[in-house]
Amino acid sequence: MPKTSPGNYFEDFRIGQVIRHATPRTVTVGDVALYTGLFGGRFAVQSSDAFAKEIGYPRAPIDDLLVFHIVFGKTVPDISLNAVANLGYAGCYFRSPVYPGDTLNALSEVIGLKENSSRKTGIVYVRTTGFNQHSKPVLEYVRWVMVRKGDEAAPAPGDHVPRLPTVLEAKVLGEACPALDLSAYDGALAGSDYRFGDYEIGERIDHVDGITVEEAEHQTATRLYQNTARIHFDLFSAKQGRFGRRLIYGGHVISLARALTFNGLANAFHVAAINGGRHVAPLFAGGTIFAWSEILAKADLPGREDVGALRLRTVATSDKPCGDFPLKTGDEYDPAVLLDLDYWVLMPR
Amino acid sequence: MPKTSPGNYFEDFRIGQVIRHATPRTVTVGDVALYTGLFGGRFAVQSSDAFAKEIGYPRAPIDDLLVFHIVFGKTVPDISLNAVANLGYAGCYFRSPVYPGDTLNALSEVIGLKENSSRKTGIVYVRTTGFNQHSKPVLEYVRWVMVRKGDEAAPAPGDHVPRLPTVLEAKVLGEACPALDLSAYDGALAGSDYRFGDYEIGERIDHVDGITVEEAEHQTATRLYQNTARIHFDLFSAKQGRFGRRLIYGGHVISLARALTFNGLANAFHVAAINGGRHVAPLFAGGTIFAWSEILAKADLPGREDVGALRLRTVATSDKPCGDFPLKTGDEYDPAVLLDLDYWVLMPR
Amino acid sequence: MPKTSPGNYFEDFRIGQVIRHATPRTVTVGDVALYTGLFGGRFAVQSSDAFAKEIGYPRAPIDDLLVFHIVFGKTVPDISLNAVANLGYAGCYFRSPVYPGDTLNALSEVIGLKENSSRKTGIVYVRTTGFNQHSKPVLEYVRWVMVRKGDEAAPAPGDHVPRLPTVLEAKVLGEACPALDLSAYDGALAGSDYRFGDYEIGERIDHVDGITVEEAEHQTATRLYQNTARIHFDLFSAKQGRFGRRLIYGGHVISLARALTFNGLANAFHVAAINGGRHVAPLFAGGTIFAWSEILAKADLPGREDVGALRLRTVATSDKPCGDFPLKTGDEYDPAVLLDLDYWVLMPR
Repeated sequence: MPKTSPGNYFEDFRIGQVIRHATPRTVTVGDVALYTGLFGGRFAVQSSDAFAKEIGYPRAPIDDLLVFHIVFGKTVPDISLNAVANLGYAGCYFRSPVYPGDTLNALSEVIGLKENSSRKTGIVYVRTTGFNQHSKPVLEYVRWVMVRKGDEAAPAPGDHVPRLPTVLEAKVLGEACPALDLSAYDGALAGSDYRFGDYEIGERIDHVDGITVEEAEHQTATRLYQNTARIHFDLFSAKQGRFGRRLIYGGHVISLARALTFNGLANAFHVAAINGGRHVAPLFAGGTIFAWSEILAKADLPGREDVGALRLRTVATSDKPCGDFPLKTGDEYDPAVLLDLDYWVLMPR
Repeated sequence: MPKTSPGNYFEDFRIGQVIRHATPRTVTVGDVALYTGLFGGRFAVQSSDAFAKEIGYPRAPIDDLLVFHIVFGKTVPDISLNAVANLGYAGCYFRSPVYPGDTLNALSEVIGLKENSSRKTGIVYVRTTGFNQHSKPVLEYVRWVMVRKGDEAAPAPGDHVPRLPTVLEAKVLGEACPALDLSAYDGALAGSDYRFGDYEIGERIDHVDGITVEEAEHQTATRLYQNTARIHFDLFSAKQGRFGRRLIYGGHVISLARALTFNGLANAFHVAAINGGRHVAPLFAGGTIFAWSEILAKADLPGREDVGALRLRTVATSDKPCGDFPLKTGDEYDPAVLLDLDYWVLMPR
Repeated sequence: MPKTSPGNYFEDFRIGQVIRHATPRTVTVGDVALYTGLFGGRFAVQSSDAFAKEIGYPRAPIDDLLVFHIVFGKTVPDISLNAVANLGYAGCYFRSPVYPGDTLNALSEVIGLKENSSRKTGIVYVRTTGFNQHSKPVLEYVRWVMVRKGDEAAPAPGDHVPRLPTVLEAKVLGEACPALDLSAYDGALAGSDYRFGDYEIGERIDHVDGITVEEAEHQTATRLYQNTARIHFDLFSAKQGRFGRRLIYGGHVISLARALTFNGLANAFHVAAINGGRHVAPLFAGGTIFAWSEILAKADLPGREDVGALRLRTVATSDKPCGDFPLKTGDEYDPAVLLDLDYWVLMPR
């Protein structure tokens, strides 16, 4: 029997099945530095222990998206090794802050299965939870993926499509944010005086800057998350595939877009939740990423006066500055659009 | 009102104005590792906690130039977002060692303003100080930059050119170096037996080795410093500009040159001050950097018998080995020269 | 006298000569993160403090090959600056685990010298030992290198070829592995249920995945080890040489191959020894590395019931997947083969 893992095929999943994923990962200041080198984040809370302590954190927390990528990376060998396409996310929210020295694990439960009419593939819905070394949940999300069948004659292993939230409720948005002392929040150090009250629903912000992506950068980032999906790393095989080149991990675009949003949203110090997102087009090395955001909604957090939540749509493009907020023409996305992300950030009042 | 920062234009500055810069930054062993991976430094004091402790440091200090780049990076959004050219540095000296875990902040005071005759631009002189989390100065320097006017009709905001030192005095050169126990200084571990007394004024050293720069490397380094000046990252826009490609941050050349000087100056363990420097030509990815140095002067440090200071000129070139010490033909720099740097290093006696 | 080091020529070595190498190096979690970003290792023991503690380590140890590369890097300026070719390794074994915060030093003894018949070069045999800050050996190996003579008329400095082991004995294989509590070893977290008893001599494993190498990646890795051998970094000079491009450090291929072996050997948590290896062909950037392994032998460790040792041959190729285990045709290596490595790993019983 071959000892290399072939991954799971559609017929290998069962509703209710729980999968403990491999390779626990201690996150350190080393990861923080490399993540900074790769994305250039400037949010003060994640950048400075001193700033974070002043306002009520024990020290600077790990960037939310770095936590997401590490947890996500663990699920790849079990969930999406035989994936045709990553279809969507829902109900993603951060449940506890992660600090250097914490060790992350991940566990997924299969919550839905739906064979496609071709009977060659099916859709697998999993709820993944990331835990720290104290078995405390730090992150939870639902993801659905189209997975190949290993044996097309195999019967469908289940037939259930779960109901998923389209937007996270305000009451869960503060879970990973301690109570903050805003009297100590220094706007000059944070880079902006615009706070929760200064943003209006419908307001759009061009984040102006652009970042070009190199092969060495996305490979290094994706390996940092121990996400070893072949398509991101193997040029030899990619040359024979549909695109002829390596496909950049979709999460790389999310992290680049998040870093770009600093210019206009400097006080959006915490990504509290991701309602959903669409990777509209693939990104390839050599492309320059730009981004713009719209304020979709605002929410108070029950019982909290320190912070409020902004629901953002952030759109990232390749090789197209965003001064005129490119999005769609009719139902069709502008061909430059890569990412259309719907998420909640917290901002001090 | 747009929430993205347009940066300051020439007419926005005032003499005496004090600007507290954004994004405090905790420097960690993660930054040390990435800086080592990007430049390959081999100076024993910065590389080894054990070596540093033996001679009198509490642990290995952060590389001086990494401190410089981090402090410099913070000033970019406020000082040079609308810069036409970075004109010079003076009076740069290190005032206290920085250790992993320290948090750096930066503050600049406008000390001079001079409108150019075109009335389209002006020169802004700032004195920038980097502080640690105890508000102790770690670095100070003056920089002058040519900045565009936002409104050409605006009156000049001031008219004063400050007097600047051409060379730092010996008395300030030891501020960031604790008293050392030289009996514990191990030349074999440090990589050379040549000490302060072995170098002569006028002596020239070819540092022999060459390092080729890749786009991913300079981008990662410059983001590590949270320096987000667009010209270093945005290929899409650069293609439409004067050079047609990304311009590498000038500080990248300084760090490469410093790493190359190990071969010939292995005991020059501390950059104490930068008297001034000229970025003679821009560096682009694919270029191979070489360097040579000349001993311009030697100085005793008042009251100290442990270390002496060498004033060095280090010249870096692109695609030209430095065996014949390329510099100028008449008044014109050799076209291969990138950098002409005048600085002080400390060396054990 | 020039202060740059010319390195040692063949006639500069003496049998019995002991060389203490420069630049002690404190290894940190920053190095761990960057090494993860460059190679994507997923072995649980090195990835997770929590996992390592559960089974009996005080915390996650530094990856064995990272230790090897750092120790090796120190020897380059003294041993192989004037090398024509790196000929081989023998008797390499790990003698103590290394943890973040430890400082590594290296020392080499010349144990053999043999002039070549051309009298232009000779072979230098050195036994190198890596030590931690407590002067405890962490790694030992023999290496032989063909080194140029500086003066062809110089007499041969010695004439002795040492006897070298072809394979390390089982009794030394556990030195760098503490006694483990296997009841706490979690196969799901480690990524596989296959343990020592599940592998058979002669079994071959295709590791399936491929990783393409970029210039920025191998340069960053090699600098991280402070290995500054010019051929890896200097494109300007390399263009005038035999290959016309930068040659990737052979150790880069070893680390990539080790990372690939996770798929099929997930519980091979510790490289205990390297019996020998051959860099069959050079690797260049742009190549995609694949690997396969064969179980050459199995060994019990005297007095230990927790772990056993597998002797592996791992073969790495460039641009050739390893489903049919490419190796040799007659006596000739398949032109795609880069590396043929013979080593011992430990695996829980």
